[in-house]
Amino acid sequence: MEISGAALQELNNNPLYNTVGLHVEEAFDGKAKSCLTPNPNVCWPFPGQVHGGILATVMDTTMAWAVFSKLEQDLNCTTINLDIQYIHPAKQPPLYCSAVTTQYTRRLCFARSEIRNADGQILAAAQGTFRIIRATLDFVSQ
Amino acid sequence: MEISGAALQELNNNPLYNTVGLHVEEAFDGKAKSCLTPNPNVCWPFPGQVHGGILATVMDTTMAWAVFSKLEQDLNCTTINLDIQYIHPAKQPPLYCSAVTTQYTRRLCFARSEIRNADGQILAAAQGTFRIIRATLDFVSQ
Amino acid sequence: MEISGAALQELNNNPLYNTVGLHVEEAFDGKAKSCLTPNPNVCWPFPGQVHGGILATVMDTTMAWAVFSKLEQDLNCTTINLDIQYIHPAKQPPLYCSAVTTQYTRRLCFARSEIRNADGQILAAAQGTFRIIRATLDFVSQ
Amino acid sequence: MEISGAALQELNNNPLYNTVGLHVEEAFDGKAKSCLTPNPNVCWPFPGQVHGGILATVMDTTMAWAVFSKLEQDLNCTTINLDIQYIHPAKQPPLYCSAVTTQYTRRLCFARSEIRNADGQILAAAQGTFRIIRATLDFVSQ
Repeated sequence: MEISGAALQELNNNPLYNTVGLHVEEAFDGKAKSCLTPNPNVCWPFPGQVHGGILATVMDTTMAWAVFSKLEQDLNCTTINLDIQYIHPAKQPPLYCSAVTTQYTRRLCFARSEIRNADGQILAAAQGTFRIIRATLDFVSQ
Repeated sequence: MEISGAALQELNNNPLYNTVGLHVEEAFDGKAKSCLTPNPNVCWPFPGQVHGGILATVMDTTMAWAVFSKLEQDLNCTTINLDIQYIHPAKQPPLYCSAVTTQYTRRLCFARSEIRNADGQILAAAQGTFRIIRATLDFVSQ
Repeated sequence: MEISGAALQELNNNPLYNTVGLHVEEAFDGKAKSCLTPNPNVCWPFPGQVHGGILATVMDTTMAWAVFSKLEQDLNCTTINLDIQYIHPAKQPPLYCSAVTTQYTRRLCFARSEIRNADGQILAAAQGTFRIIRATLDFVSQ
Repeated sequence: MEISGAALQELNNNPLYNTVGLHVEEAFDGKAKSCLTPNPNVCWPFPGQVHGGILATVMDTTMAWAVFSKLEQDLNCTTINLDIQYIHPAKQPPLYCSAVTTQYTRRLCFARSEIRNADGQILAAAQGTFRIIRATLDFVSQ
């Protein structure tokens, strides 16, 4: 399912993304990109450093959009497994996340993701396994 | 390092935990427990269901407290790897997280964690690998 | 499906287990135990130390038996995700592996596993996610 | 450390690789490639399909060579974490494995790996986290 820029813009305005400071930039053909301008509240306990669970949120979300971007209408996905490598402290926002689907099977989709800083240094990497489900999200179908 | 109930109470009052609705209940001898009364903002895109990245935040945090509870003063830990299994949708809060350290080596600590609902049904499970570092957190040393 | 001791004994006599030195001891009610008396060929490149991929083979196999032991006839399982923590070098055989299923859902089963030496020291830990499939293994149905 | 083709040729002639049917083709500048012509003994319980633990052995090994290829002399690496996604059944050998290091830090190295068949279809993907250690392998230093 193609996600138009206008739809993305609207979808980005949700309580979770606003809480963490996430903005999904694009999602099509099994790939997605997002940008994190972290809310200071999620930079704890190390000041100025994004919490690892928030990086997990960003990578899980960006992979899910990558998966979703290639699914037929009325299908959605839900995460089964998320494996994260924390490589460098996530300082110096904004941070940039990219995600790509590796392979779709009939009921599963496999993806991976990275978070980099503005200098292109890798901060975190992840693998995600998603189950494809029959579900319509209200905010998408509107 | 033993963490007194009073210290925990104070540590819980931080911007990250307040943002997600997390409260660490206890942390000693390589074990920790926490409770998540999720802020509605982190229950998205499925209403009433906690986002998987927030569950990652809860399990990562609770494992880190478990690790920390057995370290000597002036030592702290940072997550290297976090592997999560999402088993059931995380509805019906409050949710309860437990974490236990499996083994300490000289520079690493291995832990695992679970999140269950009030009925004891398991919703998510995780493994975490932590690097032991020399660091003092201001809020702990005060 | 209950697996009798006699059936297990027969199943253990297969090329893969003989190659690595694996023996499944028991499998019932979602739990399984195995013993590894490693063939010297799989202790490489560090002499006397089992290769990590062989530990993966042992934990994956033992978890699969744990999953299988609680499935109805004509069902089997196949691994989707395997996450391993290597904690200590796997020396001093024989090594003992235990596995337990955490939860069955309709199409998936989640499990975890550990390998310990004779002193009870933990050497490796794993999480596995299995897909439940309709399949009959010849050697089981005989 | 650069690994010459002649050295690789010699290193490949070891009991573990001979047992599974593994041949490391090249390893330099943080990248490595290998080929698996599986011994029938490791294709069990599904005839003609390589066991998932053997795929783990192949990806762990190929990542380790990628890591090793960029280390200074007298340094080596040991696996801390290995996270595997099993995407398609590993049939139709020979199978081809590639590995690339994502990032080196002072004490750790992060890598990822894939296994594909001759048609280029992806069968398995992995992330590995390696600890850099001071160690000399006899067979390398000779």
